[in-house]
Order: sequence, then structure tokens, then C-alpha cells
Amino acid sequence: MNPAPFTFDLLARDGRARAGVFHTPHGEIPTPVFAPVGTAATVKAVPPRDLKELGATLVLANTYHLFLRPGDELIARMGGLHAFMGWDGPILTDSGGFQVFSLKEIRTIDDDGVTFKSHIDGSLHRFTPEKVIAVEEHLGADLIMALDECAPPLDRAYNEQALRRTHAWAERCLRAKTRADQALFGIVQGGVFDDLREQSARFLADLDFPGYAVGGLAVGETKEQMHHVLDVVDPLLPEGKPRYLMGVGTVEDFFETVARGVDMFDCVLPTRLARHGAALTHGGRVNLRNSALAEDARPIEEGCACYACHHFTRAYIRHLMQANEILGLYLASIHNLHFLLDTMRRIRESVLTGTFTQFKHEMRNQAF
Amino acid sequence: MNPAPFTFDLLARDGRARAGVFHTPHGEIPTPVFAPVGTAATVKAVPPRDLKELGATLVLANTYHLFLRPGDELIARMGGLHAFMGWDGPILTDSGGFQVFSLKEIRTIDDDGVTFKSHIDGSLHRFTPEKVIAVEEHLGADLIMALDECAPPLDRAYNEQALRRTHAWAERCLRAKTRADQALFGIVQGGVFDDLREQSARFLADLDFPGYAVGGLAVGETKEQMHHVLDVVDPLLPEGKPRYLMGVGTVEDFFETVARGVDMFDCVLPTRLARHGAALTHGGRVNLRNSALAEDARPIEEGCACYACHHFTRAYIRHLMQANEILGLYLASIHNLHFLLDTMRRIRESVLTGTFTQFKHEMRNQAF
Repeated sequence: MNPAPFTFDLLARDGRARAGVFHTPHGEIPTPVFAPVGTAATVKAVPPRDLKELGATLVLANTYHLFLRPGDELIARMGGLHAFMGWDGPILTDSGGFQVFSLKEIRTIDDDGVTFKSHIDGSLHRFTPEKVIAVEEHLGADLIMALDECAPPLDRAYNEQALRRTHAWAERCLRAKTRADQALFGIVQGGVFDDLREQSARFLADLDFPGYAVGGLAVGETKEQMHHVLDVVDPLLPEGKPRYLMGVGTVEDFFETVARGVDMFDCVLPTRLARHGAALTHGGRVNLRNSALAEDARPIEEGCACYACHHFTRAYIRHLMQANEILGLYLASIHNLHFLLDTMRRIRESVLTGTFTQFKHEMRNQAF
Repeated sequence: MNPAPFTFDLLARDGRARAGVFHTPHGEIPTPVFAPVGTAATVKAVPPRDLKELGATLVLANTYHLFLRPGDELIARMGGLHAFMGWDGPILTDSGGFQVFSLKEIRTIDDDGVTFKSHIDGSLHRFTPEKVIAVEEHLGADLIMALDECAPPLDRAYNEQALRRTHAWAERCLRAKTRADQALFGIVQGGVFDDLREQSARFLADLDFPGYAVGGLAVGETKEQMHHVLDVVDPLLPEGKPRYLMGVGTVEDFFETVARGVDMFDCVLPTRLARHGAALTHGGRVNLRNSALAEDARPIEEGCACYACHHFTRAYIRHLMQANEILGLYLASIHNLHFLLDTMRRIRESVLTGTFTQFKHEMRNQAF
């Protein structure tokens, strides 16, 4: 018998690090998990079959971008995001709030929602909690996010006001939601302020979401402040629900935050770096446009199991980058995604075998 | 026992259409064959494993471009073009002459060779027959082309002069050649003039090349003139050697020229069209940016066996094109290559089964 959708099986703990399986209508997500980002319903330059081969088990798509183009209603008519983008595994959509609030000059926020101008054509739109849920239901991802307000992390007054809205909006999102095949995550806010974070974690825990995101991090605070926030919310969130740290995607952050109970991550970093010609390796970032690589017969990283490293040299990929050939972006994207997905698999394995702290220590001596 | 390299087994004729197998050090090429073009040592946007999956058996690379960037000597030091670009099947390089002669403002031709400026950085270079063979030997393709002069097809005086050079250069290329694992093709020139084409075919046939290209076509003459040139040279070229029509890649041209004894083709058309958002189908070209496709749930072409058509709708690919997503170029490239490669496979099958004329007639009623 299949477990009910959205049950989260916690399989092991090692310290506060957790390994589990999150069940969704489109398959199991082993956690901790890193989700590649497919902003416009495509992980840039990477076909879905390559994502499968890379072992991706969750893909993120951006509600703001898809709402504007091609439109959530169009995607619904085309059978939803899974069918539309040809990815039959689990998908997560954000609420679009982060993108909208980033449009500083062209949005106005009130207690009911936020009005903003499209970055594509300047047209005027409005997101309310109810609207965002409607859009996310049209898109049809397995995991959907509540609309929240992400405040500057160090501004106490702003965070107090934003938290009131975030909590009211979380309740409105819950009420607006109609689909049983989607799990709505609540988002803990509160900046760097312990009491606000505690208040937020308790308030949202009471609403009994199937999962929780920790928002407002990796947006300007220090690493120490980020870690402290996770230390504060970890004991307050229900143990049997996955915790998602949005927009985080460096190996160092994986280790430090898995150690603080985080189960889910997403980040544009691997594919964005690839398009800028940078490759992630255990020896640090490699600039694939560097003339020093012109006759480098090694793969991007020795011992790497990805398609790019199995078949192509740094010299070739450097040539592709110099010649602005799409294949260069593809190969670098494949490699960088493999690097993060494989690191996360090894982190999970270390939690399952009780060797997480040792593995974290080993990896600390490497440069990323 | 493996046949010696570069033997050409003529398996069947149907009228003047031919089906055969051309043996090369990197594998067999079933003919007639269409070769995707990988100008800068990559078929644009298409990884080598996808080319294999598409059934490509020959890839063309451009000597002019690789000579300039990353340099033929660099590629030689990296183990040659096959290793460099991760394609272990047969490769063909052109002589670079066509590109150089196209640089009208920035090249000067004399009987010894041609001096030209790089389109990349304006640096000055010189190609002679000996230099081109040295470059092609550095690149290491299985099939290499002699340096020829491609004259405007209707200019009698120019063609007389160019033909003298082309023939002298063909002899010099043969003398300069040192590698036994490469087959040097002679190139028949002579514009639209029967006597010049006859003279060229006889002269080159006497030099006993392992294969022959018919040059100076698809560059401004009419289709009727192109067909007539092929009619003239067909009986004069050795039956046991493959004939290559350079730069031709439409389905109509495939049928009309296979019917006139052509065995090999290459063209940038399928990948270039893809980057411009056009897809080849049996019902004609489809503009993948067209708003009429916004909610078109069909594949690019019904019944097509390619990866793009098996997994993605026109609506999705149109969205990718609108959003300038690389995946759109990839999927359109895959489809267009499949379309031409598959058409050529079906042409070959029809020659083998003696149904070429019938198949040609059936396809004539379709729009491309």
C-alpha cells in the first residue's frame, strides 16, 4: 500500500541532521534534497531526461515568471506544469512573492496583497494570497508555497509589520486552497529577531502545514545570523514535517544547515554559474573561459561521474565557451548540477550511516 | 576481415540512385547520407550522444573556423578532432576554401593560394593547397577535401581560370597528403558549363581520388542548372567512389540529386532553422514562435519519433522560444536533424528495395 501523499518518513537523525523520504503524488523525494531551478518551466539548457539521469528528484519553477509568461491559465489548459514541461517527477512552485517584492520601484504592498508591474511588458498585476493559490493550483506543482512578505532581515519595525501580514496571508492561503494533490508550505519569517522567529514558527506550526519553509534568509544577513535563526526555529517546527531553506545552494551552506535540521534546498547557482562559464569542483570554482585551460586535457573534475566529465576535456569546453557555443553551457550546467546533487546524495548517505559530522569535517578542508 | 578503409560498397541502384556503404577508420557510413554540420567542432546545441541517438553517421566540421579558433595545431595536440569533440564516428572536414572565398572584401587570390583576414580578429592568414592539407591532417577527420576555387557559376571566364587553379591545387593536395587514415576528395568545378564540368570530372577521375565532391552548386544557379551539372558529371565519375554534393540539405534536393547519383550531403539548414524558430515537417515549415501555437497540444509533427515530438508540445516549445530558453533551440534542432536524417534513411531503404521512384513521387505531393 502506498503511503498517503505528503507523508514524511524520517528515517534517520545524526545530531540534528535528518534523512527522510517525502511522499508526493509524482514520486518520492529522498531528503535532504537539492532542487534545480526551472524558472520558466525549464532548468536552463538541461532537458528533463538529463535531469532524471542526474538523479534530480525535485524541480522548482517560479510562479511569478510563469504567471506572466506563458500564463498559469494556459498551463492549466495544457494539463498543468508536469505535462507542459515534460517532467513527471515532483515539482515545487514558490509563491512569486520574493520576485514581486524584489521589484522595488514598481510594486506597492498593502495588507490585502501587492500590486506590481511586469518586468516583461510593464503591465499591471495584483497578487493576493487567494490569487497566488489560484495561480499555483493552475500550475499544479506537488509542493506550493504560501504568499509571504520577505522583509529586510535587520529592520525590526518592518519585520514586525511584515510578520503580521505573512501570518494573515498564511491563513488566507490555507482557506483558499482547494486541491488535495498539492501540499501547501507555510513560511517562517521574522528576520534576525529570535522572538519574531519563535512567534512565527509557533503560529505556523499550529496551522499544521505539511511542510515549512524558512524564509527571509540568504538575503543580506551574516552566515552566523542565518545559522542562529535555524537554531531558533528547529525545535519549534514539527519533527515529522520537512523544512525547506529557500534559495540556498552552496556546499558549505548545505552542511551547516543540514546540521541544523534543514531537509530541502533550491538554488539557481549551478546553472547560473555555468552560463557565466564557471564550474564547481572540490578544488574550488574553475573559470572555463580561462586561457590556462586551452590545452588542459583533464575533465572539469577528475573522478567526476557526470556526462561532461566522462567525455570532454577542459580544453574543449573552454573552446566552446570562447566560441559562444550552446554545448558549452549545457556541459557546464550538467556538471554543476551533478556536483550539487551528488554532494547532497553523499550528505544523505552520511546521515543514514551516522557519519555526517565526519563527512562534514572532511569536506570543510576543501575549497568551494 | 574488415574491408580496407575507404572502400565503397555499392549495394544497390534504382535508376541512377545509389545505395552503398562507405568504410572509414571510424566506422561505416551507409549512403546516401546526410551529415549534420558542426562548424566549430560542435553541431550547434546538440551533444554527441544525441547525434548518435539520432542515427547520424557522419559529421562535418569547418576547417576555416577551426583553423582560426581554437587552432588546428591545438586540436592535434589534444588528440585530433574526434577526441576533442567527443565524436567517435566518421568526420568530414571541408577545405576552408568556400569560407575564405566568401570573405570578398578581405581576401586576395593568386595561383599559389589565397591570403585572407580572420573574421574574428582581422589577423592575416594564407591558405595554399599544402597548408590546407596540413591543417586537415592536424584536425584528423576521416574524409578531407582538396582546396578548390568556387567561382560564380554563370561567369565563363572566371570559371575557366578557377578551374585551372582547382585542378593544379588538387594535384598539389594529393602530393602534400601524408596520412593513410584520411581519404582526400577531389572537387569537380566548372560552373554551369558542360564542357568545363566534363573536363573537370575527367581530370579528377584520372587522379583516382577515393571520393568526389561536386562543388560550385547551390550558390546561385537555378535548380535546373544544378540538376543538369549532375547529369553531366554522373557518367564521368568512377562508379565505385562516393559522390558528395556540398551544402545541400532540403528534402526536395535530396530526391532530385540522389536520383542523379549523389551519395553524400551536408547542410547547416536544420540547425540554423531551429535557432530561428522554424521546424521542418512533412506539412511544411512550422514557425515555432507563432502565437497560433500558444495552446497547440500537438507535437511539432504527429507521428515523429524524435525526443522532442515524443515528450513536448508545440505550445511548450513556442513558450521556450518566446522566453529565449536554450531548451527550445535544442528541441527544435533535435527535431530538424531527425527529420532530415530519417528522410535520408527512408530514401536509402527505397533504393535498396527498388521503390525510390515511387517514394520520390509520394513525397513530391508534400510541402516542405
